Amino acid sequence: MPRFAFTIAATDAAARTGALAMRRGTIRTPAFMPVGTAATVKAMRAREVAASGADILLGNTYHLMLRPTAERIARLGGLHRFMGWDRPILTDSGGYQVMSLGSLTKVSEEGVTFASHRDGSRHAVTPERSIEIQRLLGSDIVMAFDELVALPADRDTVAAAMRRSMRWAARSRTAFDGGGEHAGRSAVFGIQQGGLDEALRGESAAALTEVGFDGYAIGGLAVGEGQAAMLGVLDFACDQLPADRPRYLMGVGKPDDIVGAVLRGVDMFDCVLPTRSGRTGQAFTRDGPINLRNAKYVEDEGPLDPGCPCPVCATASRAYISHLVRSDEILAAMLMTEHNVWFYQTLMADLRTAIAEGQVQAFAAAFLARYGGAG
Amino acid sequence: MPRFAFTIAATDAAARTGALAMRRGTIRTPAFMPVGTAATVKAMRAREVAASGADILLGNTYHLMLRPTAERIARLGGLHRFMGWDRPILTDSGGYQVMSLGSLTKVSEEGVTFASHRDGSRHAVTPERSIEIQRLLGSDIVMAFDELVALPADRDTVAAAMRRSMRWAARSRTAFDGGGEHAGRSAVFGIQQGGLDEALRGESAAALTEVGFDGYAIGGLAVGEGQAAMLGVLDFACDQLPADRPRYLMGVGKPDDIVGAVLRGVDMFDCVLPTRSGRTGQAFTRDGPINLRNAKYVEDEGPLDPGCPCPVCATASRAYISHLVRSDEILAAMLMTEHNVWFYQTLMADLRTAIAEGQVQAFAAAFLARYGGAG
Repeated sequence: MPRFAFTIAATDAAARTGALAMRRGTIRTPAFMPVGTAATVKAMRAREVAASGADILLGNTYHLMLRPTAERIARLGGLHRFMGWDRPILTDSGGYQVMSLGSLTKVSEEGVTFASHRDGSRHAVTPERSIEIQRLLGSDIVMAFDELVALPADRDTVAAAMRRSMRWAARSRTAFDGGGEHAGRSAVFGIQQGGLDEALRGESAAALTEVGFDGYAIGGLAVGEGQAAMLGVLDFACDQLPADRPRYLMGVGKPDDIVGAVLRGVDMFDCVLPTRSGRTGQAFTRDGPINLRNAKYVEDEGPLDPGCPCPVCATASRAYISHLVRSDEILAAMLMTEHNVWFYQTLMADLRTAIAEGQVQAFAAAFLARYGGAG
Repeated sequence: MPRFAFTIAATDAAARTGALAMRRGTIRTPAFMPVGTAATVKAMRAREVAASGADILLGNTYHLMLRPTAERIARLGGLHRFMGWDRPILTDSGGYQVMSLGSLTKVSEEGVTFASHRDGSRHAVTPERSIEIQRLLGSDIVMAFDELVALPADRDTVAAAMRRSMRWAARSRTAFDGGGEHAGRSAVFGIQQGGLDEALRGESAAALTEVGFDGYAIGGLAVGEGQAAMLGVLDFACDQLPADRPRYLMGVGKPDDIVGAVLRGVDMFDCVLPTRSGRTGQAFTRDGPINLRNAKYVEDEGPLDPGCPCPVCATASRAYISHLVRSDEILAAMLMTEHNVWFYQTLMADLRTAIAEGQVQAFAAAFLARYGGAG
């Protein structure tokens, strides 16, 4: 297999479908990556994640560097072997979680220092250290280290953070290239920043493409700006990034967010929503999300989502899952998470098919009309 | 399939191995029944329980009558359909949990009233109501309703509770026989009581055999009396019960308890230990139990129990599971429980083979020498 080869097999207006070939396997795009925060997609075995159709999952640098530590995972043969997942893994850079979970955070040109949310221990992450951690984990797709600013923020703050992130992106690329054997086996993505501002987004895209990356992420969205604002950014952000490289919208999102982003040219997604919802009683269905704590499901003998191909819908009724949710049974989290991950993977497969058939607009309209959501 | 046919294929001193044929499947004995308290073996899918080699599982009348209620399960087609388990299910009578989990409990000749441990709501269970609940659940093996006394207790208290339990056993049998179609498809077991007293145990056995049951349980043990006292009771209790009927030691136990009881002629067991231990970081191994929170496992690349045939030992290292346990990940409970249930089923399979080959004494000695425990 090649180190990294992205092929677009078909386009349909701005949407595209294709494949990202890597040493550990091929990622069909548009792709959704389940989040395996602490070396596990919560409540799922690795083989169950694979069975859902996921070609790649995401690991969180922040969580893994704190526990069990990147060095320990490296001594144990890397993250794939540790967690029993042999397909590609994308690791984030840790920047987002440092800002959202860490405390007493200090940012300088060098990098970030922060206190662990778990035990208060102090840690430092620089672009170079983030790349080193991702190399120790054995990541297949390494993300550049960037600085997150919470929106709303004034334009100068957004611009300053974006420009620092671009300097860190260049340092990340250099650190990645200096990673020896690992650099020859993996890929590195830069992350576009700039908030909701088209000019700043354009400046960021130009800086990243000047450095040159295997793929380009769109960062700093899905942080509370709302779907319309997010899709508004995608209307120009995708075009600012190279057409022949994968575009990855980080941390997105709801099914209708994903449909809207695919229509605008995004190729990759990750989000905790299907897994987190699975632990709080929310199931995704083609008729929109339902909450299994609702009394109307206690004697409902139907599956979570009629017509869903997942193993849960083949065997368990809403009545049974409702009982498990109300009883706080671990099996509730297991079944709900499995169904939700399958729902997302089925949606991605349907989007790929629709794009290949030149029917993505019709598919999206029908999906959104039934599911609800503006797209 | 017959309603209920117990065949002893081989004996080895007091130990026996055979099969209990029922409409929903054959139970190989000696058998261990995983506990599926609230219509789920905690942290396991029904198909995963089946894959471990379990021919039967146990459901708790007390929990199910409170939530989701027996009537709801009946409306949904019975417990098998509800939880997706098509092999036999044994239900307890609720008596033990009423005494151990209920509060404000009042016992009269008629039955028991108590307050739910969950919401304080008041409920009544009589022998007739217990049998009705078990029929509504669609139980394959129905247990007579009995009265539990906590040990130590004076002989008069133990005797009075035993004699009341024997009157309740007769009422349970009558209620079972009046259950119409269900009685023709299922079996009913009586429960011997009498504490640690040989004469009272003998009186109880005589009363039960006078009524006549499909099988006989040994109740009131594993309540703190210690292994030596428990095995001391089994030394006479098994012989007091009909040799051609299955003997079921309720709520037992540790692996070494089970080996000791099988040597004395017990055919069936249930216990929460493998599943509960799986949620607290304890794994069973042939070298004795180990706690995965112990620091010595954090970089141990070996499986939980070398040589174990379970799917967990085939894929996950102690180091990985140690990380999951420390991270309070749901996957820790899933993998630990699965391994522990396989450990118990493998032990039962090994015991069956050893008895069939006339080697059970040698097997038990070797197992206990390695595992630890008096047997």
